[in-house]
Amino acid sequence: MKGASSGAPTVEIVTVGDELLLGETVDTNAAWLGRRLAEYGLVVVRRASVGDDRAEIQAAVGAAVAAADVVIVTGGLGPTPDDMTKEAVCARFGLALTMDESLLAGLRERFRRRGYGEMPETNRRQAEVPESARVLPNPVGTAPGLVLEPDGRAVILLPGVPRELRGLMEPQVRDYLRGRFRERLAPVHHRLLRTTGLAESALADRIAAAIPREVGPVALAFLPDLTGVDLRLTVRGVTDPAEATEHLDRVARLLTPVVGSYCYAEGDQDLSAVVGELLRARGMTLAAAESCTGGLIAKRITDIPGSSDYFMGGVVAYANEVKVTELGVDPSLIASAGAVSEEVARAMASAARRRFGADMAVAVTGIAGPGGGTRDKPVGTVWYAVATGESVTARHERFLGDREEIRIRAAQAALALLWLNLRERR
Amino acid sequence: MKGASSGAPTVEIVTVGDELLLGETVDTNAAWLGRRLAEYGLVVVRRASVGDDRAEIQAAVGAAVAAADVVIVTGGLGPTPDDMTKEAVCARFGLALTMDESLLAGLRERFRRRGYGEMPETNRRQAEVPESARVLPNPVGTAPGLVLEPDGRAVILLPGVPRELRGLMEPQVRDYLRGRFRERLAPVHHRLLRTTGLAESALADRIAAAIPREVGPVALAFLPDLTGVDLRLTVRGVTDPAEATEHLDRVARLLTPVVGSYCYAEGDQDLSAVVGELLRARGMTLAAAESCTGGLIAKRITDIPGSSDYFMGGVVAYANEVKVTELGVDPSLIASAGAVSEEVARAMASAARRRFGADMAVAVTGIAGPGGGTRDKPVGTVWYAVATGESVTARHERFLGDREEIRIRAAQAALALLWLNLRERR
Repeated sequence: MKGASSGAPTVEIVTVGDELLLGETVDTNAAWLGRRLAEYGLVVVRRASVGDDRAEIQAAVGAAVAAADVVIVTGGLGPTPDDMTKEAVCARFGLALTMDESLLAGLRERFRRRGYGEMPETNRRQAEVPESARVLPNPVGTAPGLVLEPDGRAVILLPGVPRELRGLMEPQVRDYLRGRFRERLAPVHHRLLRTTGLAESALADRIAAAIPREVGPVALAFLPDLTGVDLRLTVRGVTDPAEATEHLDRVARLLTPVVGSYCYAEGDQDLSAVVGELLRARGMTLAAAESCTGGLIAKRITDIPGSSDYFMGGVVAYANEVKVTELGVDPSLIASAGAVSEEVARAMASAARRRFGADMAVAVTGIAGPGGGTRDKPVGTVWYAVATGESVTARHERFLGDREEIRIRAAQAALALLWLNLRERR
Repeated sequence: MKGASSGAPTVEIVTVGDELLLGETVDTNAAWLGRRLAEYGLVVVRRASVGDDRAEIQAAVGAAVAAADVVIVTGGLGPTPDDMTKEAVCARFGLALTMDESLLAGLRERFRRRGYGEMPETNRRQAEVPESARVLPNPVGTAPGLVLEPDGRAVILLPGVPRELRGLMEPQVRDYLRGRFRERLAPVHHRLLRTTGLAESALADRIAAAIPREVGPVALAFLPDLTGVDLRLTVRGVTDPAEATEHLDRVARLLTPVVGSYCYAEGDQDLSAVVGELLRARGMTLAAAESCTGGLIAKRITDIPGSSDYFMGGVVAYANEVKVTELGVDPSLIASAGAVSEEVARAMASAARRRFGADMAVAVTGIAGPGGGTRDKPVGTVWYAVATGESVTARHERFLGDREEIRIRAAQAALALLWLNLRERR
């Protein structure tokens, strides 16, 4: 088995839930866990998913314990009768469940704090813990994490709700794993270069022409999504963080001239956070005027804590008359050039900047579909503009994909134009 | 095991690829396969993911063949050396690989047709097929699907590229499964009742008090997320669709009085789509004024195709001065009651309705955090209001969670208030 051969501790992830097998839920926890565990220096050797079925859960966990040093079981810790992970696993290892009065008090308190009044009796089960288990308090939910150590293995039970899973993994599970496996850990060091505006294949060609695919211990992976392509640099088998950082720096320096004008962040920062930092650094304020993106740009900007420091607000001018009444766009302009045009995009940006008394404004007008396309302006046609005190810059694209994809791509392109403008200011 | 007990053929899905274990790829194939197989009438009892490792692949497929009637293996059929699924599985079952000359000719032809010139030698392997295997031509890629039948089981090898996987599943794999298991197929019938505004445990208590957890062949599951709790009714082992529908109708009728005022949809419709349909049916238009949700409500409303028929637009009044300048909220109101107050929420809703000339408007003002909370108005305090020609209704909540969760919950609560108002109109 990989784990054994590499010496690093091995992990099997077992996810529980009928909805996973029925395909009603895409298992995003598994990918998140895989990345994190690799970063800690453990090796995920298997993943298994089973339904809300006692025998299936016990069979999967039994097989996992035989195959890996650590078994992480997610899902089925909720308060409802179809949540049976804890009971099934404890029965499998002959561990009795006892009521943890302090947990129970915490649960009751949580319900009162939330204004739900008395805790429903259904939730009592969530306060029962296996004998000799390590209890990990859940900062954002009602089901605690549980660490069992049957036969010297580690079996870790976590809720399936992604936010709760993540809130329990870090720092609690991470620190437990580091404490327990310290000398055996073989951390994987990553760096993310986030790019937007260039297709994966074009990016790959440029990079292939400039640098080898493996530079020393650094491997390069392309992770494309609707907002762009992330370049992931990975160093394996280098235990000294400083040495790993050197390797990553060297390759990042090689890549910068190649991807520079498309690379908006190192690390997992969102483009809207990068734009926000630049606005803050420049002491500038921003407004938005959106048609086809329908509020998505404002939403992404205000996803960022503290965005009220630089974001004044925005208008979603969805109906054409609103572009006129709210933004004072000249109706004859809409009549002559059409609502989806360079002229209207520019007018929307300038108007939004004035209306909100902001230093800059971003505007988008386009056809997200599925209806509304014409021969000259097919679905996906989007004009976007950035207005400043000095000038207005406009661009257009024909984005492919369905309504949602087009809206996501359009919002990202508009934010990227904003970023390019801000980056050039000193 | 579920499958055996229900009599329907059981399936284990084995996905192969280091990128899955490292979390570089989210396994969307598994969810798609799960939905499709349930619709065909098979029961997925397990899913396993292993890396590009011969021993791991063989162990997983061996275990799967022992546990299920059908094993679907995806991934690792590509031309590169780390693609070893076919070789590993054939070795596991002692099947020799032989070159399929017509497949090989097809591959060479494909490369020429696409203008790639001569086929790289690395692709030759993709034309090797196991003895006695059924070969499924790949309409969109180079790796054919393969059906093996060792020991009377069905082992189906498919490429991991989603487009290729789907192109091979339907019609080819579907028809093979239907032909082979016809009389044993037991389609799963679902109905989703979507609720919002009531915690999972509270919902469970109400339902437990009203109806048994299993009504005849109908099983009930709770699927909670940040926007509410979905109730999933599932009928298994009923082949006649009409009979299944009767069962589902009966349970839905039992549930309606219990969850009625929280249940906004049957099926997987989003609340914003339900609101949109009601607006359309009532011939009414809508506007939005958002503070802490920062455009999320407008974004969700405009996620729906055709929303331009009823959505006029919205204002994201993020800075207080914008609430005054854009919405004409009385600054003394903000000074006296505070920006997050019933008074300001009502004023924002009324102003938005006037400004956009809409029949209704929804408004939200709150503290999404992490900063900005006070003792009287802690983070999570949200006031929201709906204004109509007749009246303005306002509600407030204290939502727990991080910034994102508070914003998602606040937008959903505001849409729910809109829905309740629209539902009562005739």
